[in-house]
Amino acid sequence: MTSGTLEDALRRPFAEPGGDRVLDAARAAIEEVGIRRTTMHDIARRAGLGRATVYRRYPDRDAVVAAVLLREVRDFLAWLDGRIDHIEDPAEQTVECFVAVVTGLRGHFLLNRLLTLEPAAALPGLTADAGPVLAVARGYLAEKLRRHQAAGRLRRFDPEPAAEVFVRLAHSMLLTPSGCIPENDDAQSRAFARAHLVPVITG
Amino acid sequence: MTSGTLEDALRRPFAEPGGDRVLDAARAAIEEVGIRRTTMHDIARRAGLGRATVYRRYPDRDAVVAAVLLREVRDFLAWLDGRIDHIEDPAEQTVECFVAVVTGLRGHFLLNRLLTLEPAAALPGLTADAGPVLAVARGYLAEKLRRHQAAGRLRRFDPEPAAEVFVRLAHSMLLTPSGCIPENDDAQSRAFARAHLVPVITG
Repeated sequence: MTSGTLEDALRRPFAEPGGDRVLDAARAAIEEVGIRRTTMHDIARRAGLGRATVYRRYPDRDAVVAAVLLREVRDFLAWLDGRIDHIEDPAEQTVECFVAVVTGLRGHFLLNRLLTLEPAAALPGLTADAGPVLAVARGYLAEKLRRHQAAGRLRRFDPEPAAEVFVRLAHSMLLTPSGCIPENDDAQSRAFARAHLVPVITG
Repeated sequence: MTSGTLEDALRRPFAEPGGDRVLDAARAAIEEVGIRRTTMHDIARRAGLGRATVYRRYPDRDAVVAAVLLREVRDFLAWLDGRIDHIEDPAEQTVECFVAVVTGLRGHFLLNRLLTLEPAAALPGLTADAGPVLAVARGYLAEKLRRHQAAGRLRRFDPEPAAEVFVRLAHSMLLTPSGCIPENDDAQSRAFARAHLVPVITG
């Protein structure tokens, strides 16, 4: 499988065109029955491959699951990047990033399926063990801020802790959806982000 | 036991002087062996009371646990209030509130004990079911902002979503401690809060 840290893996180029039959099959199985009830046998059958072929790529079920989740995070960031990378103004980029993230997380079928289907299995990975994924998301946003700073569009400060404020807001909104921050109406979400999130980097 | 919602219960005056023997006993048991292995028998024995006496107040173990956790939240907010209520400047109050909360959560023995001792039992209450507690914390902070607005020390805006940004930051930092937001050095925490959190309400 992959070598190096999760951060390294996440920073690699996005998945090869055409995707990966094993990961697609594993994803479908997880969505249908959850992680615990997904077996290597199921994955091989759904992928239309022999079990030996799957075992040659991944030592066990947990390794396949880890690869699926890794690909999800990479795909999510790639999707987000397509929505916000072209925006030159740091304030506007922050606003559109917030709208995209709340929309994207709310509509993320696999994530929400895991949280309702088997929270006990999913929660450790989304809390105590989520440090590396949060760090990747923070690095992604910090890189955007760094680029604005280099171009003179944003004052200089360490962009990592500021980016972490945004990541942690999304993290908490994912784990505990109830709240009063607007997330179902894009116009209201934008007004909220402009008033209270943009100042985190411009204030 | 208590009637009404969790929010109502949390907004009642803080615990009566002298505390409550049953809740003290239950808290000690939970800290030692966790929630699942704490029984009504243990609680009665530790409290020096008959089991019938405990059952007269609480129908079952889960009701005692809920009352313990409720008291913890109330005590935490009372402790926080003692540290920040006297501060008149909204920016300074935000800074000191951040320092107090990161210090208080890091040092919260019961909370950290539950997260390490039995995360599977503790996590749902801290994620999917944490909405009411987050709402109480948000209401507490929003009330402070409202008071500043009424006194003309802060511009007018809906204080609830802004307060929620702070609550969710603390929520995520509690659940996934690893990060780069300064929390072990008060001077650095203050500088961070001044640069990136105060603007959430003043920017």
